[in-house]
Amino acid sequence: MKIIVQKFGGTSVANSKKIRRAAERVIDAIERGYKVVVVASARGKLTDELIADARKLNPNPPAREMDQLLSTGEIQTVALFAMALEHMGHGAISFTGGQIQMVTDNDHSKARIKSIDTMRMREELESGKVVLVAGFQGVDESGNITTLGRGGSDTSAVALAAALEAEECEIYTDVDGIYTTDPRKFKRAVKMEQISYDEMLELASLGAGVMHSRAIEFGKKYNVRIHVRSSSENKNGTLITHEVPQMEEVLVSGATIEKEMAKLSLIGVANKPGNAAKIFAHLAHAKVIVNDIVQTEVSTKKANLSFTTSTSDLAAAKKAIEDIKEEIECENVFVRDDIAEISVVGVGMRSHYGVAEKLFGALSKAKVNIDSITTSEIRISCIVDDHQGEMALEAVCVAFELDKPVAERSK
Amino acid sequence: MKIIVQKFGGTSVANSKKIRRAAERVIDAIERGYKVVVVASARGKLTDELIADARKLNPNPPAREMDQLLSTGEIQTVALFAMALEHMGHGAISFTGGQIQMVTDNDHSKARIKSIDTMRMREELESGKVVLVAGFQGVDESGNITTLGRGGSDTSAVALAAALEAEECEIYTDVDGIYTTDPRKFKRAVKMEQISYDEMLELASLGAGVMHSRAIEFGKKYNVRIHVRSSSENKNGTLITHEVPQMEEVLVSGATIEKEMAKLSLIGVANKPGNAAKIFAHLAHAKVIVNDIVQTEVSTKKANLSFTTSTSDLAAAKKAIEDIKEEIECENVFVRDDIAEISVVGVGMRSHYGVAEKLFGALSKAKVNIDSITTSEIRISCIVDDHQGEMALEAVCVAFELDKPVAERSK
Repeated sequence: MKIIVQKFGGTSVANSKKIRRAAERVIDAIERGYKVVVVASARGKLTDELIADARKLNPNPPAREMDQLLSTGEIQTVALFAMALEHMGHGAISFTGGQIQMVTDNDHSKARIKSIDTMRMREELESGKVVLVAGFQGVDESGNITTLGRGGSDTSAVALAAALEAEECEIYTDVDGIYTTDPRKFKRAVKMEQISYDEMLELASLGAGVMHSRAIEFGKKYNVRIHVRSSSENKNGTLITHEVPQMEEVLVSGATIEKEMAKLSLIGVANKPGNAAKIFAHLAHAKVIVNDIVQTEVSTKKANLSFTTSTSDLAAAKKAIEDIKEEIECENVFVRDDIAEISVVGVGMRSHYGVAEKLFGALSKAKVNIDSITTSEIRISCIVDDHQGEMALEAVCVAFELDKPVAERSK
Repeated sequence: MKIIVQKFGGTSVANSKKIRRAAERVIDAIERGYKVVVVASARGKLTDELIADARKLNPNPPAREMDQLLSTGEIQTVALFAMALEHMGHGAISFTGGQIQMVTDNDHSKARIKSIDTMRMREELESGKVVLVAGFQGVDESGNITTLGRGGSDTSAVALAAALEAEECEIYTDVDGIYTTDPRKFKRAVKMEQISYDEMLELASLGAGVMHSRAIEFGKKYNVRIHVRSSSENKNGTLITHEVPQMEEVLVSGATIEKEMAKLSLIGVANKPGNAAKIFAHLAHAKVIVNDIVQTEVSTKKANLSFTTSTSDLAAAKKAIEDIKEEIECENVFVRDDIAEISVVGVGMRSHYGVAEKLFGALSKAKVNIDSITTSEIRISCIVDDHQGEMALEAVCVAFELDKPVAERSK
């Protein structure tokens, strides 16, 4: 049985017309010879509306009840989607997370999938029906409804593709694939034909987020081919897949910019065990999301520690640091809220020299000042002045030829 | 464990304010020493909106998917209701029909309850929580979601009360109880303190429908005290219960009028086996709801047969009869669409003479012409001219003293 999983996000099923258009994508796949499993999100803004309804009754609603409430949005979509397919001449059956035994842990609002029972789905697929599964939701071992958190429907889809050994998991969205950089920031960005899970993970965590990183991690772990494509037109998008040799020939696959960043530098912190842990525990408690961290020793007893966060978390971060400033013996705190982060990502970096040189060269030529640098195995990020951000991104994109298809770039 | 089941209809939970008010009724019961199980319907007009969404995609949606879709409305209500209770300081947990194993047959959109697993509910009640159950829904033995049809939440509530051996099942609604007749038609109608299941069944089927007849049948079968009361004020309503001796002292408990009725009289139909079956099979096929049927023999070979229906079904009924007129050898068809039906109901009729005499006397004194008469063991109905309907109802109510509490009526 040749199975394909197709996932449609909330904007792709927001109204009857869009549901019918999504159903056409399903019928295309049937005509290509596939048995189709559809995963869908709640329609349009429904989830936000339900959250608002809940907060009117309880500003801090119990997570179990919130999951019970929110799970209904996706159930509505798949039932309606099944009706549309039936009307278009294709047998279809919809399931809740519970009905296919998508079993998760009981960590409500951010549950993790433990197992999926594929028997019922396989039966229905074999009988010729399209199987539709409400995304974002599961059940714990006591039958309580759980939800998988942000990007949960992507995770449902990839997990189902893994469990059903599907040939591909198609993620339908309102963009037609993954671009070398955000086309709103750099007009000449080009669509990638393929990208590795690791590159996509770096890009997802850097805010290029067409897909949530948990879904990509799942895909990597279970070797699921993920195809990100447009729900409004029937053409190939970008394939997220395992690294293949030709990927390594490309130095840099994509570049990103993150704006509205802030950097806090803690000067002269006592360099003793537990201080860093104390700082970041305090920040986590204040719900500050920390991006990059850099620490440098300035003497045997003192270190400078800096970290970046979004400007929206800056006030909370400043307060959190102020509270423990004495305890960690911090001499001074410098804050910058006028910065942006430019990153380049590529698995080719692992085996090629010269990426850093080329990056810094491009920034230097564009007269962009670099505040600080962090790296991972397949990523280099630079903090630059916010007002130079777009210019910096463009310089980097041009340097790494991100405005050209891979085949046309210089070797 | 002293358990009470409280059911809130869609208008009683239409918005946050109303959900909070309903939650106050729950807290009242907790303070009266009860463990409380709440059954709730979908908020306001949500079910109608979902049906409209479905029809846009499929004018004739598959019943299984329709049930899957509609079941979400009630789940939303109970989750929100639980959040409200938590915020008001009372532990609460909501369940779908499936989560408490409300098992039904698989007759989608009008499923019948087969069994309920009370274990989980009992555990939660014992731990001090309010248990909230989504009304109107169950699951079949394969885990497909089913719905119980019109008035389904009433049925869920009464069935839960039976399964949990609750002391009472309270049906909260926008009226404060059952009246001797419709107060909009006869201003001096009085609220009944109690009424028997059988009387309520006759009244429900006659359109006085505060509650659906299936729920009342369930209550009768499993001996559940049903208390119909107002969701907006905390005072006693009407108790629906088994017949008690004093009920028999009352000749007539209530009276009803059904307007917008039509009567078709089939004259000179061949009086042979199978003809009546043929007629009503044909009407059922045309989805005509038939009320009363009267047949009289006019010769050894011929009979006159008449039946009533609502004026909205008249066109379909006329067409259905026209189609088989020759086959049943019907000589002529007379149609009246200017009639109303007046009925009086009372278990006292079983053991008392004179109800018919009193009824016909009252109508005669009011100069109301009686077209035809039908009876059951505890009901007498008369077809009268539509324009005399309200006058006839008033005459009947006065004759049977339905404007006075039972204790004040003449013996």
